[in-house]
Amino acid sequence: MKLASLKGGRDGRLVVVSNDLTRYTDAARVAPTLQAALDDWDKCEAGLRELAQGLETGSVPVERFHERECASPLPRAYQWADGSAYINHVELVRKARGAEVPESFYEDPLMYQGGSDSFLGPRDDIVMAQDEGWGVDMEAEIAVVTGDVPMGVTPEEAKDHIRLIMLVNDVSLRGLIPGELAKGFGFFQSKPSSAFSPVAVTPDALGEAWDGGAVHLPLLVRYNGEPFGQANAGKDLTFNFPQLIAHAAKTRPLSAGTIIGSGTVSNKLDGGPGKAIAEGGDGYSCIAEIRMIETIYEGEAKTPFMKFGDTVEIKMKDGEGRSIFGAISQTVAKYERK
Amino acid sequence: MKLASLKGGRDGRLVVVSNDLTRYTDAARVAPTLQAALDDWDKCEAGLRELAQGLETGSVPVERFHERECASPLPRAYQWADGSAYINHVELVRKARGAEVPESFYEDPLMYQGGSDSFLGPRDDIVMAQDEGWGVDMEAEIAVVTGDVPMGVTPEEAKDHIRLIMLVNDVSLRGLIPGELAKGFGFFQSKPSSAFSPVAVTPDALGEAWDGGAVHLPLLVRYNGEPFGQANAGKDLTFNFPQLIAHAAKTRPLSAGTIIGSGTVSNKLDGGPGKAIAEGGDGYSCIAEIRMIETIYEGEAKTPFMKFGDTVEIKMKDGEGRSIFGAISQTVAKYERK
Repeated sequence: MKLASLKGGRDGRLVVVSNDLTRYTDAARVAPTLQAALDDWDKCEAGLRELAQGLETGSVPVERFHERECASPLPRAYQWADGSAYINHVELVRKARGAEVPESFYEDPLMYQGGSDSFLGPRDDIVMAQDEGWGVDMEAEIAVVTGDVPMGVTPEEAKDHIRLIMLVNDVSLRGLIPGELAKGFGFFQSKPSSAFSPVAVTPDALGEAWDGGAVHLPLLVRYNGEPFGQANAGKDLTFNFPQLIAHAAKTRPLSAGTIIGSGTVSNKLDGGPGKAIAEGGDGYSCIAEIRMIETIYEGEAKTPFMKFGDTVEIKMKDGEGRSIFGAISQTVAKYERK
Repeated sequence: MKLASLKGGRDGRLVVVSNDLTRYTDAARVAPTLQAALDDWDKCEAGLRELAQGLETGSVPVERFHERECASPLPRAYQWADGSAYINHVELVRKARGAEVPESFYEDPLMYQGGSDSFLGPRDDIVMAQDEGWGVDMEAEIAVVTGDVPMGVTPEEAKDHIRLIMLVNDVSLRGLIPGELAKGFGFFQSKPSSAFSPVAVTPDALGEAWDGGAVHLPLLVRYNGEPFGQANAGKDLTFNFPQLIAHAAKTRPLSAGTIIGSGTVSNKLDGGPGKAIAEGGDGYSCIAEIRMIETIYEGEAKTPFMKFGDTVEIKMKDGEGRSIFGAISQTVAKYERK
């Protein structure tokens, strides 16, 4: 089943989308918003699945689905917690500055609490007061949406609390990160509003690509129209989603609609740093990573961060080449106070 | 005007409370929940104020108000961002471990992104799997609730976006903090669910105690029934709420219902660390602080963190000794998975 929130109001309007992303049907009679459906999932799921089936058989009213009309599936959420499951990304950051990765990082997930009150839509501009000055970067990731999760949940139990899967652009301001992390309290200004894919899907919609813990497909990133990344989200992850959920729920319960992110998807190549797609590698899911590889091999970073007008597209295709979640497609633009 | 959310459903039931906290009237005809009222404040405020006036004149239906029936004013919120406005607290932490406070801390607020999906009610137990092992502690603070705040707001403009004021117990797990901060991504497991005062009040309800930036009254903390803290929330703050809001909104807008905290309220005594109330001082708003003072003067911390069964009460009184927000009153209890 595929769900989306068409723009309108603070929480959008819930619709069920056809598997091929061409049609939708309104879900208002089941739940007005995705948050409302998640709040009462046991009651709403069957009704939403009926609509999904009706869409495929043509037994419900349909409208043409346009990804550009979507807000993020949860335009605002009660929680956005982002992990760092792909340690390769962390290893590169550390290697570029000559530091070791602590042993504990392989047993205890890194996770930060993100802002969740004002997500961008998947086609919204990334509007910032500065571009290169703040080091605007994308981070292409996978995220899951949970139901209610009890405090102290085990990874094994956590599997059953995953309701939906989607893609994320975890926009990051690299220029603000060092100062902010040096203060010791984690990210805040350096992590502005994130954007999510037009469509969120239930785990079964991924078929064999979902193994209960991760999505085994390449995450396709284009930067200014050129292929930039195709790292496989099912490879090189040190922690899977159930483990990340258990980490988040160690000392408090998680409410329905909690979003848990994977961190930047990143693959190794022959056990070491990857290569650009043009050089036969799987590329990168953020600019910081190519800059780290440049630093390691060439002594300094050469690829600049995003400038006003630069574009990023993030999507994922199934085995037959069809877009699963629709595309996040964003342009960096200058913010002017009105 | 004073507002509360009676327990019921995920978001509680919005009521308007009399100034003396003895009576309430249902606000459903204006807005079903506090979040709904904040989402549409310009339309709802007048209706809520009419009910508040009706409560005082006896022209609306009234019920007896019981603080114990309250959820936190926002039982779940889209954002909880907690500052560290009272640098004395930070200075003590650093002094206890022989470190300097960086100059930048006096110009650039410390702030962390907190979890906001599952707040405790003001009388709910603080349920934890471990007590001393995790170093359970209270942090008594003030918080404001904002309306929609544009990105890049100035402190001067931010004043007008403050809708409500309330008290917080920012529960902290001191035993988990060092390991978590060492990982570099800030707090997560070390900051479990916070609790807020039964009542949230509009700035005008504080009269002269609110100067547009801070609350100039002592924050009263009792620990196991004994006076523990009475630090004045209007003294020794390096940053006021408008400055904290501007900090939070530097790179993204804040959505209506965003909660911004002051950090642990902490006063100096003659320019140095404070004293216990029993010794003629204004005491402490968290246990960590008295432990730091013990470390500075006696070489080691002596006061243990909270154990199962320990209680904390947080309240604030107006000039005539009347409770303004009602009391946060919580007991630490052992968590058992069901």
